[in-house]
Amino acid sequence: MTDVNALERILRSDEDVPPERAAELSAMLDQPPIRDVVRLVERSTATRAAVVLRLLSRRRSIQVFDALDAAHQADLIDALGDRAVYEFFAELDPDDRVSLLDELPAEIAERFMRTLDDSERDITGVVLGYPRGSIGRRMSPEVPHIYEDMSVDETLEKLRLVADDVETIYTLPIISRDRLLVGVTSLRKLFTAEGSAGVAELMDEPVFAGAHDDAEETARWFLPLDILAMPIIDESGRLVGMLTFDDAVDIVEEADSEDAARSGAHEPLQQPYLSTSLFRVVRSRIVWLLVLAVSALLTVQVLGAFEDTLAAAVVLSLFIPLLTGTGGNTGNQAATTVTRALALGDVRPRDVLSVAWRELRVGMLLGALLGAIGFILASLVFGLDIGIVIGSTLFLVCTMSATVGGVMPIIAKKVGADPAVFSNPFISTLSDATGLVVYFLIAKSVMGL
Amino acid sequence: MTDVNALERILRSDEDVPPERAAELSAMLDQPPIRDVVRLVERSTATRAAVVLRLLSRRRSIQVFDALDAAHQADLIDALGDRAVYEFFAELDPDDRVSLLDELPAEIAERFMRTLDDSERDITGVVLGYPRGSIGRRMSPEVPHIYEDMSVDETLEKLRLVADDVETIYTLPIISRDRLLVGVTSLRKLFTAEGSAGVAELMDEPVFAGAHDDAEETARWFLPLDILAMPIIDESGRLVGMLTFDDAVDIVEEADSEDAARSGAHEPLQQPYLSTSLFRVVRSRIVWLLVLAVSALLTVQVLGAFEDTLAAAVVLSLFIPLLTGTGGNTGNQAATTVTRALALGDVRPRDVLSVAWRELRVGMLLGALLGAIGFILASLVFGLDIGIVIGSTLFLVCTMSATVGGVMPIIAKKVGADPAVFSNPFISTLSDATGLVVYFLIAKSVMGL
Repeated sequence: MTDVNALERILRSDEDVPPERAAELSAMLDQPPIRDVVRLVERSTATRAAVVLRLLSRRRSIQVFDALDAAHQADLIDALGDRAVYEFFAELDPDDRVSLLDELPAEIAERFMRTLDDSERDITGVVLGYPRGSIGRRMSPEVPHIYEDMSVDETLEKLRLVADDVETIYTLPIISRDRLLVGVTSLRKLFTAEGSAGVAELMDEPVFAGAHDDAEETARWFLPLDILAMPIIDESGRLVGMLTFDDAVDIVEEADSEDAARSGAHEPLQQPYLSTSLFRVVRSRIVWLLVLAVSALLTVQVLGAFEDTLAAAVVLSLFIPLLTGTGGNTGNQAATTVTRALALGDVRPRDVLSVAWRELRVGMLLGALLGAIGFILASLVFGLDIGIVIGSTLFLVCTMSATVGGVMPIIAKKVGADPAVFSNPFISTLSDATGLVVYFLIAKSVMGL
Repeated sequence: MTDVNALERILRSDEDVPPERAAELSAMLDQPPIRDVVRLVERSTATRAAVVLRLLSRRRSIQVFDALDAAHQADLIDALGDRAVYEFFAELDPDDRVSLLDELPAEIAERFMRTLDDSERDITGVVLGYPRGSIGRRMSPEVPHIYEDMSVDETLEKLRLVADDVETIYTLPIISRDRLLVGVTSLRKLFTAEGSAGVAELMDEPVFAGAHDDAEETARWFLPLDILAMPIIDESGRLVGMLTFDDAVDIVEEADSEDAARSGAHEPLQQPYLSTSLFRVVRSRIVWLLVLAVSALLTVQVLGAFEDTLAAAVVLSLFIPLLTGTGGNTGNQAATTVTRALALGDVRPRDVLSVAWRELRVGMLLGALLGAIGFILASLVFGLDIGIVIGSTLFLVCTMSATVGGVMPIIAKKVGADPAVFSNPFISTLSDATGLVVYFLIAKSVMGL
């Protein structure tokens, strides 16, 4: 531990690393576990990260580069210089290579592709051929060809030959002679079986996905099954690749970071917070803030329309933040619940009516509770009139907000938007305006203004 | 697909399954892929889920039960009846068994433990011995003992014998004769090596964790390393178990669901949304709503203190939701960014000053932009005085909210609370009150009220 912290202090200072210290630093970097070095690189600016990678031994530097996000890798390209990058690039698995290519400007991506040898380029091209966001982009196209008529011994022999080229030899797809997927087996099963047995006897019903399926959805249902890898097939049922658990983990992780960011009304940073430039942090937030502020102009309009009512009973303005806040919170609760349920697949778009009906009842229950408390407190302090207004507004606002909050993420998904976009602040801002209208209409009729 | 939907319709209807249909349903349930059956069970109430499990073949029913969350399994206990549950329980891996025991009332948990045979009980007891929230609770205690002086052939022989009892044989910890962890190797390496070679020659530097380490933190740094499993050691460096990637996925998934819920100001549901009772949904939200509503009483106080100012210039009340909303949004952006960064380990508690300094500058930049726009718009519509008040309030509110929003999750973590607790709505509610004080102080001095 102390090693990495000392290194971090040295690397955080703005001075350049003097050549005479390079050997010493290099030796220091060789000691800590690889995960600490990855963490160190992730927390550094691109220039500093490049220095660290150059100081590492060749094998460790490839491991570290491999462990970084594609966005972070892309940032390092400039700082590293072409030679080092080409070498890292060639060592990546084809699917990780494609993720990195996606982050690079087109002409740089092409230059990178040209550095690959023919077979590597072909295999990378397979992955590039699937649409963005599809699982085909994230699969490993290098799979061992195990035919259903092979014996266990023949299969083991074949695996020994290809073991260095494929991403996994633990989960094994079994195919017919025309490459149709017929089943899966595992090295574990082969390993404990009789050598003369046929692989077909060890075959299980395969869990698989289509190469054009949505990457996030596929990864979400695949991961809880606790299996290491599954075959990916094309439209005619032919084996085209394997999705390994670690690629699925990456996909879900990216999606969750995006959802967390959107629910907080900003864009995901792509990079560790402390190594992101101030400008990028501002950029990830400003558009959302502006959109929300412009929507909030609606509340200024609403209040402007009721300015006479407000002037006649200034006491009404005291409750504005309480009422809009409570409406926003109730809406957020419903929205985050449904957004998460959609992401996990627990709720599907066609469940929209069940969700609306549930949230309507939940909202009424919450509204009845809060409304009763609001009625009692406000009556005691501000009189019966205000008590009735506050109590009934709370009831209505909670009911509306919960229903709208629950339904919005589903509508977003139906129109092809990210459900998390309609979470938290967006729902608050929209429910503020309607809540205020309800409030003043009730106040006008109860208080006779 | 149609199969499962048809099944779902049958099972959603409230009628009981008549005995003469049981065989037909049983046959229908045997066809769809296991993941669809899991989904179906997850979306059903406990009673219905129990019916499905009883209709499944023995092997499939165990697979399905195994794939459910511990909370969901616990819910099924009553509906399933003891005999079936004991059988499922005995089939679970020791770590999953402990997760289920944690969800059950103590006397039921004890009754379950008594159903295990001696060796199973011992091994489960090992896992139960570690503190809640530690990685020791989630590891697999059944590991093959590969000693550093064994040859590849001896190791493979041993693995064949224990393959059925251990959770993974793909990542293999290597230990000294006194059980100290000395390295790791993989079945893949053994498989392609010479049989007479020593395992020590194939050994890599191990990635490992301590059994008392925090489960969430450990799972978070382990998963991005893309390895299948890692050894877990006790304080003296002895091997006590393995953490497999699927258990790490479960841990991170639970933590993310919890964070998503907290950032939306409610408690996580533990179960798929549609199969959770209305009462539980209300309970997961009401406490937060009450706490937030009570904190919002502070805004009523603040506005009450400035009631004279409001009466003198009712126009000021028009901007209340805009200003509190913008402050809340800026605070939320900072809070969700930092909460996520803390969860991923990108930010550590001791970075609090760097975070505060970043967010102060980000807040000032955002505030300057929004303030400038607010100044122009408000000046044009409501006159220069109001323009100055709105512009400068926006600037100060953004600066304060971003700084406070960024620092709060770190403070929460330092005092041992969940950082997500201080996300979104909580920060909004708190920043509302301070924002309003700033607003009225500026208004009073600029407008001379």
